[in-house]
Amino acid sequence: MAKVGKQTWSFKNSPRILGSSAVGGPKEGEGPLRDDFDVLHDDPYVGQKNWEKAEEQLLKESIQMAVKKAGLQSDQIDMVIAGDLINQISISNFSARSLGIPFYGIFGACSTSMQGLALAAQLVDSGYAYYAVAATSSHNATAERQFRYPTEYGGQKPPTAHCTVTGAGAALVGKGTEGPMITFATIGKVIDMGIKSPWEMGSAMAPAAADTILAHFRDTGRTPDDYDLIITGDLARVGNPIARDLLEKEGCSVSEKFTDCGILIYNPDQPDVFSGGSGCACCAAVTYGHLMKRIRKGDLKRVLVVATGALLSPLTVQQGETIPCIAHAVSIEAGGETS
Amino acid sequence: MAKVGKQTWSFKNSPRILGSSAVGGPKEGEGPLRDDFDVLHDDPYVGQKNWEKAEEQLLKESIQMAVKKAGLQSDQIDMVIAGDLINQISISNFSARSLGIPFYGIFGACSTSMQGLALAAQLVDSGYAYYAVAATSSHNATAERQFRYPTEYGGQKPPTAHCTVTGAGAALVGKGTEGPMITFATIGKVIDMGIKSPWEMGSAMAPAAADTILAHFRDTGRTPDDYDLIITGDLARVGNPIARDLLEKEGCSVSEKFTDCGILIYNPDQPDVFSGGSGCACCAAVTYGHLMKRIRKGDLKRVLVVATGALLSPLTVQQGETIPCIAHAVSIEAGGETS
Repeated sequence: MAKVGKQTWSFKNSPRILGSSAVGGPKEGEGPLRDDFDVLHDDPYVGQKNWEKAEEQLLKESIQMAVKKAGLQSDQIDMVIAGDLINQISISNFSARSLGIPFYGIFGACSTSMQGLALAAQLVDSGYAYYAVAATSSHNATAERQFRYPTEYGGQKPPTAHCTVTGAGAALVGKGTEGPMITFATIGKVIDMGIKSPWEMGSAMAPAAADTILAHFRDTGRTPDDYDLIITGDLARVGNPIARDLLEKEGCSVSEKFTDCGILIYNPDQPDVFSGGSGCACCAAVTYGHLMKRIRKGDLKRVLVVATGALLSPLTVQQGETIPCIAHAVSIEAGGETS
Repeated sequence: MAKVGKQTWSFKNSPRILGSSAVGGPKEGEGPLRDDFDVLHDDPYVGQKNWEKAEEQLLKESIQMAVKKAGLQSDQIDMVIAGDLINQISISNFSARSLGIPFYGIFGACSTSMQGLALAAQLVDSGYAYYAVAATSSHNATAERQFRYPTEYGGQKPPTAHCTVTGAGAALVGKGTEGPMITFATIGKVIDMGIKSPWEMGSAMAPAAADTILAHFRDTGRTPDDYDLIITGDLARVGNPIARDLLEKEGCSVSEKFTDCGILIYNPDQPDVFSGGSGCACCAAVTYGHLMKRIRKGDLKRVLVVATGALLSPLTVQQGETIPCIAHAVSIEAGGETS
């Protein structure tokens, strides 16, 4: 059985990230990780006629770059697994239209990056794909106008709000002799602790992150000591400490190894970043840009990336519903030569 | 390798549908397949306070029934794979909240049923799950108000329109000694032949259906002769003949074996069914209710179910975009005892 415990897939055949890419927009280019992006766009329209076309462009660029960096051609890819925040994941669907590759559409809100990476690794590990791409995107302006107000309105936000990252990230997973290995993936449950405010997404998602991290350790027998870094997707400065507290309460001390992609991607003093970054591209770009670089350099040996998603919609908020959340975790390790 | 050809998964370990369920609403209860549903609701609100809660109820009921019919308990299920038409697949997310089972959210519009069944079979076949549930739902009133107008407006529609099925369907896949076997799944590409009108979804989706069916035969070496029935998801009376023509043009004669779930689910003379049924529940309920019954009775030995999805959104239509479409095919066969 390739499953360990209740909710973790164990990969025995060393699926690896053979190529990955991180694409960002103007605000990401002003952040501390600017040197870890493959491409940074100054123009938030990316030369397109509307925000959705811009985001589509970011996603396509990211997929094409991951394929290229792995030294492969599009027609060698067995499957693209992608999703995004926009209704009917239309950014991913429209991007896939031009690719001519079998397409598996997923939705996990901002947990999409690791949800897709988990499946790509699973397909490669089990021999159902030679090469699979996991990709996702978000765009500040497409998300703002769908979930809140068009940015042109200049609506005010509380400091617990997040800033949706403009960007995309993709990973090409396959068998190979080098590149970071994917060893485990823990698939989350939907957790809802009763938070209703869409301005409190970090707090809403923190219990889902803690639940998945605890499940990961329970299923694998690992402890925080086995990791150099445990990084959540977009809990940011409000939610990450809550997740830490929830873990400590369960006797799981993550100490200084615990951080969040939404904290890392912006400087706290950048204008309008609020509690930090969010959006599918937050975890994707930080993982496939910044973390891949550190793993490839040998700076990090083993990382647990825990992408977090708030599964709300404007309609469910208007209907007075609380916010169901989910988190999916993937263990990524520096890969030597395969034995 | 567990993959054959370019886009088909081949299952060697006999994943089976151990339990399945079909739930419907009032209009489905007036159709010719009424006796094949497990539950039919007279009340389109299903006793809930809004349409979305009603659809959530249908989906939950369907999942619980598939688990029960397989003689299992919820805590034995490794994963629920689900999606729906509503923005951010919120019906599935909210349903998963009460289940406490690891959740994998997918989006493929009306192709969701077979997209999910393919993955459930793949996970079981490769040993990453003992038991996985694939489920989906749609509701006429949730879809109408999101994609078109609230039903209360009484908007007029052309005869090429579809009627979104109110219902849900679920399949529990696992290894066992009896029950229909899943032998192949062909994952589709996104195909867009340039149709812009959201009233022409059957025509828009037909090329995607034909593309996936041709890929299935090419990858597996099978021909239409190997199937008793080849059934599309929701091309209905306009799209199904177009798909047939496209197949014939490629030398693939599907003759009298070729039909569509959207044609079967309603009588043509039922009021307001237009060209036939659509929605995620159309293919799901017909497959998991009607077809399962016929397979279990021995009436059908081998069926290719080709669920079709139109990947449009109201926004993409307003932006003047054409409609990208996809189709995923799963081969389901009458199962004797495993050898």
